[in-house]
Parts: sequence; C-alpha cells; structure tokens
Amino acid sequence: MSDTTGGKGLAGIASIARCAREASRELALLSDETRTSALLAIADALEENSERILTANAEDCGAAEKLLSRGGMTPALFSRLLIKETGIGEMAARLREVAKLPDPLGKRLAATELDDGLILHKESCPLGVIAVVFESRPDVVPQVASLALKSGNAVLLKGGAEAANSNESIVTVWRERLRRFPDVPQESIQLVQSRSDVTELLGLRGEVDLLIPRGSKEFVAYMEENSRVPVLGHGEGVCHVFVDRLADLHKAVSVTLDSKVQYPAACNSVETLLVHKDIAAEFLPRVVAELERANVEVRGCPRVQALFPEAKVVSATEKDWSTEYSDLILSVKVVDSFGHGLEHIRQYGSKHTECIVTEDQAVAERFLREVDAAGVFHNASTRFADGYRYGLGAEVGISNGKLHARGPMGIEGLTTYKYKLRGNGHIVAEYSGGIRQFKHKPLG
Amino acid sequence: MSDTTGGKGLAGIASIARCAREASRELALLSDETRTSALLAIADALEENSERILTANAEDCGAAEKLLSRGGMTPALFSRLLIKETGIGEMAARLREVAKLPDPLGKRLAATELDDGLILHKESCPLGVIAVVFESRPDVVPQVASLALKSGNAVLLKGGAEAANSNESIVTVWRERLRRFPDVPQESIQLVQSRSDVTELLGLRGEVDLLIPRGSKEFVAYMEENSRVPVLGHGEGVCHVFVDRLADLHKAVSVTLDSKVQYPAACNSVETLLVHKDIAAEFLPRVVAELERANVEVRGCPRVQALFPEAKVVSATEKDWSTEYSDLILSVKVVDSFGHGLEHIRQYGSKHTECIVTEDQAVAERFLREVDAAGVFHNASTRFADGYRYGLGAEVGISNGKLHARGPMGIEGLTTYKYKLRGNGHIVAEYSGGIRQFKHKPLG
Repeated sequence: MSDTTGGKGLAGIASIARCAREASRELALLSDETRTSALLAIADALEENSERILTANAEDCGAAEKLLSRGGMTPALFSRLLIKETGIGEMAARLREVAKLPDPLGKRLAATELDDGLILHKESCPLGVIAVVFESRPDVVPQVASLALKSGNAVLLKGGAEAANSNESIVTVWRERLRRFPDVPQESIQLVQSRSDVTELLGLRGEVDLLIPRGSKEFVAYMEENSRVPVLGHGEGVCHVFVDRLADLHKAVSVTLDSKVQYPAACNSVETLLVHKDIAAEFLPRVVAELERANVEVRGCPRVQALFPEAKVVSATEKDWSTEYSDLILSVKVVDSFGHGLEHIRQYGSKHTECIVTEDQAVAERFLREVDAAGVFHNASTRFADGYRYGLGAEVGISNGKLHARGPMGIEGLTTYKYKLRGNGHIVAEYSGGIRQFKHKPLG
Repeated sequence: MSDTTGGKGLAGIASIARCAREASRELALLSDETRTSALLAIADALEENSERILTANAEDCGAAEKLLSRGGMTPALFSRLLIKETGIGEMAARLREVAKLPDPLGKRLAATELDDGLILHKESCPLGVIAVVFESRPDVVPQVASLALKSGNAVLLKGGAEAANSNESIVTVWRERLRRFPDVPQESIQLVQSRSDVTELLGLRGEVDLLIPRGSKEFVAYMEENSRVPVLGHGEGVCHVFVDRLADLHKAVSVTLDSKVQYPAACNSVETLLVHKDIAAEFLPRVVAELERANVEVRGCPRVQALFPEAKVVSATEKDWSTEYSDLILSVKVVDSFGHGLEHIRQYGSKHTECIVTEDQAVAERFLREVDAAGVFHNASTRFADGYRYGLGAEVGISNGKLHARGPMGIEGLTTYKYKLRGNGHIVAEYSGGIRQFKHKPLG
C-alpha cells in the first residue's frame, strides 16, 4: 500500500494531506498540455494493464461473493464492485473524454477597469486538495481522479475495504505512468485505506478544501454533520415524473419506464409518479401494465387503487412519498391540478431532478421555472441527470445543495477563482476623499 | 417590531423563515423591471424618511454612549453604529447602484445540444432564503437587502441589540414602500430580534439556504462550527504587503500607509509588511517614519529592530504574525527572498488579500499566480478588496472560503443555477443500448 500513499507507509492522513497540499501547488502551475498528455498516457496505461486490474478485481469479487452468500453484502453493492472485461476500455474512453475538455483553469470570468491603470480580473483556479469517500465501485477512481487532474487538484481517495485491491491496482497503474511526467507529482493521487482515517479526515479543515462523500443517505448526512471540512454531499434522489393532463401518453409511458427501470439503484431514477386526474383513467392502466411487465412494484394512493379493482396495486403510505427506493418500486399519486403536483414535489422532492411530461409548452415552461431542483426536465427521462450525459465528461458527484455546485458536478465544480488586481501604486484614500472616481468599466 | 417580522409578532424564527420561503417563491418569478423599480422607490423612501431613521439611530447612539462610558462597548463598535447625516444619502446612492446592475437571474451559463431535440440549458436562479447575522452597522441592512432583492432572494436580518431602533426604522421604511408594489411580498425582508433566535436559526437546514455571519473571528467560527445551515463566513483578514527588492519606494510607502491607515478596523487592511532584505535598509526608515507620523505602532523582527538602534521598534512575537490587529499596529519582517515572502504568506495569511509592490513584471505575475488568496494585488492597496470598489455594487460579505463565492460577494454569490433539459420523449436506454449517440454540441 505504501506505493499508493506517497511512499509514506503507515503515515497518518494528516501527513498524507500535507503531501497532497504540496503536490497541489505544483499541479496549479502545470500547463493544460501537460495535464492533458498525462491523462491520455494514463488511459493507455489502464488498457495496457487491464489484466492486472481485472485480477485484482477478481480477488475483491471472490471475497465479496463469500460475504454475499452469508448475507454480509447486498447484491446491489456486489454488482457495483465487479469490473467487466469491457469496463477497462470504458474507463480509458472516459479518461480521454475528460482529457479533451477545454482547460478549466485560468479562465477569465470577468474583467473590469476600476480606473485608469487599475484593472481587475476574476480568474478560475484549482480548489487545491479534494477528498472523495466512496464505496464499492472501483470506476469511481479513474472518474474522480481524471476530473481532479484536469482541473489541477490533488485528490485523496478513500474507497471501501471491499474494493481495496481493485482501487489499489488502478492507482498503482496511474502513479506508475505519472513517472513519465516529471512535472506531475505522484502525490497528486493518494489512496487512504483505513476506516479510522475518515474520522481524522473530517477534522482537516484548511488541509483539505473539499470533501465529497458518495454513499447512502445516512452516510452522507453523517459526513455533513460531523465534518469541519466543507462537504458537497452526493445527493439523495427522490425524483418525480409529473404526467400532465395534456401529456402524450406514449412519451409518458416511455419516460416513466426509462426513469424507473433503466438503472433503479441510481439517484436519478424516479421514485414517485404524479398523474393529473384528467388523464389518470386513460394513462394509469397503460403505464401500470408496462411497469408490471418490468417487475416494478406499484404503490398507489386511493385514487390509483380505485382504478384497479382487482387490487393489484399496493397501498402507498405517507412514508412512501419521501422514500428513495433505489429499487424496482414506484409510488403513484393522482393529483387534482398542476398546482397540486408542484406542491407535492415541493413537500417531498429532494431538489435533485424533476420531470414533466406534457405537450403544453406554457405549462412545461412554468414547471421548469417554478420547480426548485438542480434538474428540471420536460419530456425527458430523469436518468439524463448525469455528468457524462450532460457533456461534463464525468462527475465527482451530484449535489442537491445550492451552493458552489448544483446537480452533476464536473471539472468546473473543482475550481474556484481569484481576483487579480493590477495597479500602479493606487490607494483607496484618493477615492474615499473624492480626488478620484471609480470607472467600473467592464472589459471585453 | 411586529411590523417588520411579517406581522407575526412573537412568531418563532422557524415560522418567520417559512414566510420568507413563501415570499422567495414569489420573488423568483418577478421581472427584473419590478425588482429594479422597487429598489429605486425604496432609495427614495430612505431619503424621504431620513429624519425618522436618524432619530431612531440617535436613540441607539444615546444608549450606546452610556455603555461606552462604562466600558461596555468599544469605540470601534460605537463608531460603526452612528449614521452620519450624509449616511442616508450614501445608502440611497448605493441602492441605486445595485438597482442598475444587470439582471443576475435567468442568465444562460451554458447551453448544450445533447442530441437532436434534446437541449440542456444551465440558467442562474435565486438561492431562495438568505439569513445575515451582523452587529452594529445599520448600513448593512440596506446593503444586504438590496442585493437580496435584486437577486430575487428573501432575507432574514439579525442585527445587534445596540442597533435595534436603527435597523427597525430602515426595515419599516423599506416595507412601507413595498406596499406600492403588490407583486413584491413584504415578507421578502424580515428582522429577527432576539438573541435566542440565532441558535434556532443554525438548525433551520432546508428552510434557510445560506447563512452569512458578519462579526468577530470568534463569532464567525462559532457559527461555522454549529450551523446545520450552509455558512459563508465573513472572512478574517491577515493581509500582507510584500515589498520586493525592485519596488518603487514611493509606491511602496504609499500603498503600505493606505493599506494600514485608511480604515484599520476593516478586514482588508494590512497586518504584516514583508520587506525584501535587499531594499530593507533604504525602505524601512522611510516607511517607519511615515507610519509613526500616522500613529501606527510598528512591531518588527530582529532585523527590522537592528535598523533602528534607538529601539523605537517594538519586538514582534510569533503571535504577531497571525494576528488581525484591526487597529493602528503593523508587524514588519525582513525576508531573504521572494520565496521566503511567499512561504510566510502561506503560513500566516488568511487567504483574504495579498499585495506585492514591485516594478518587476515577471515577479509580480508569479506572485499573482502562486499566492493562494481571494485577492492577489500588484501595486495597489489591500483596501481595494471590497464589493463596491470591485464594481459589484455592494457586498453581503467577504468570503475566505473557496467554495461558491470567494472574496467580496455581491449579487452573483446570492444566485445558484438549475439545469433545464427540454426533450421530446427522450429516454436513456437508447443511449446505453447504443441505438443513439450523444452529440454534446455547445450552443452559442
């Protein structure tokens, strides 16, 4: 393990973070060309070393299978652990996508002539040191690490014990290839292995600039409540599809099914279907039939149940409306109006992604404007809420918070900015004293 | 007081926050024209009611004078409490500046064609409900409230007891004038008066979107550590002026003096002067003479003291290097090189604002690039680090953090964004299944 943690062996996480801080200073000065070339070279390295990575993953999966058979691991977690043979190629392809993104650093976000010879520039720069805590999925490693490197940030990765060999093999390959780039410090990517490190990590304010927990709702909430380091929690997804009275029923069925079935464990899958009363009798039999064909358990409000007298729809309880099932279960509710639909979303939604299906453009625009969520969709599956699908290259997480980054968070979320002011001996006293006046002229 | 807290009298802060949330929904739908007209009308109202506000302020100042004479208040706090006769006009002028800023809402931050008929827009929108906790200065009320209204946010204001009458008179005038704008809810601005409310405020996660504490370092730290609501703390300022070996001495003296003397209580005033050893013998006698003329106490490292054999320079202790004096005191250190200067800033700076004085352009650019702070200045006083001077209209605070907003935080810091996705029944399964490919074409 020493090889992937800065050669420091049993070094504590505070000292690992300090190495990362030093590395981040070097990273911030690299050209985009160097960062891009390194990423492309690492993509090649992953493919060249695919057997090594798959062997390490097989070890993890072997141990996990035993756990699984004893009930010590959920099938969902197990399926996320496995790297398929095509998985390495996909990781490499994603890395190349991130590599070719425009340089996120040194972007001029604003330029103002405050006065003659006094010019203010607002310019993007890296955050510094990012820490990501995640479980199972080893493909999080290249995804997060590539976004970090492209944006000039050092990254600390704390994966789950179940994926220890997989994660270590990927990071080892990554660091080995970095040796070809003497300007890129190997300490720019470091694995953190022990569980006790997480507690220590939460206290490293000033050492770590941003902590991104990816995991269960309870896990993310624990991190948010106990961290002194700024946290952007990967969001809980209680997402809705609202089928308006003027919906195209074919689109409504298709979008509902895709939103639920395409990958039910994802945070952007739908949990509650809201149906306008005027269209309920026509739409619900069609969509419920399709949902059942896809093995989705439907839990309905009394008005939904009334449409299915043979009682094949389970009764939805109050708790259902705020539950992220992450499973083939869907709660369904009939609402009296557009306004009631909005009210339900306001009360139970997690501000992640909300969708309306309608052919009424005016109603669609109202929905997109009035619903307070990171993603507001018209006639499109909630499953599109994803950094790769949005064209961000990849994502370090999806934020339900409104500060800094909202929704899928790519390289831009890993940058901040600084104000550069260039003068010629300018002092404030002359402006306060009325000798000089600010121009505040925006520059192109 | 009932008039300024949503007519709810003794209502708890949770219910005040809920009123603010409802108001924020209406605010988010207002046109820029309405928000701007309301602000201009309020600016007039403040001027028309200046006597009323000055009378209220005189009451607060009368009570404060008694406290002051008993040592129950610092002179600095007292001076911030007083509204000068010209103060109302200045408040109104600032309001008009904020009113005429470009609309911060509905800005298209990005537009991408994900595929035929599937268009993604990233658009700015208000945060929702902002809470600001501050002490003394009643001019914070119009400054913060104007930025909030311009950016479509509801605001909860918790001022200090010492300014209760002043704050209430301003908010009352504000709300009275809002009656002329039936679309703008009066609950968009609410005063919170009791001290116990602050504790409750810290727990209103989900009800309040952003909490901005303005006050002492200890106060801000307390809020940051105890709040479940996201906090952007008004930053501590341990700012440096670094006088390089190739500095123009006239500029160096002038920038140092302005940075220290122009308003020493401000967070953007300088606390430590770093001087390159090659220029120390020539520069220090000049600057120290000027500083003493301005009643600044100089605390020097041994090399500084050695230059003043008559021992008029006090010895700086380790504690001095990390102290924000907020007073007419300046610590001074001679450093061996540019690198040593950077190292000192890295160790002791608060990432607020850092300045270099030099005629060497290459050295200046290195400084602006390598120093990690919200503001990095070349040949300009640290006192320019201010929302109004930056052309942001005003500021709700200055953030030393790197997330969301950095440095002086104006209307942009009070906005977030949402992703609007418009499709025509698009589903993810077709992309995962390889039937369709993403285009990810940036739109102009």
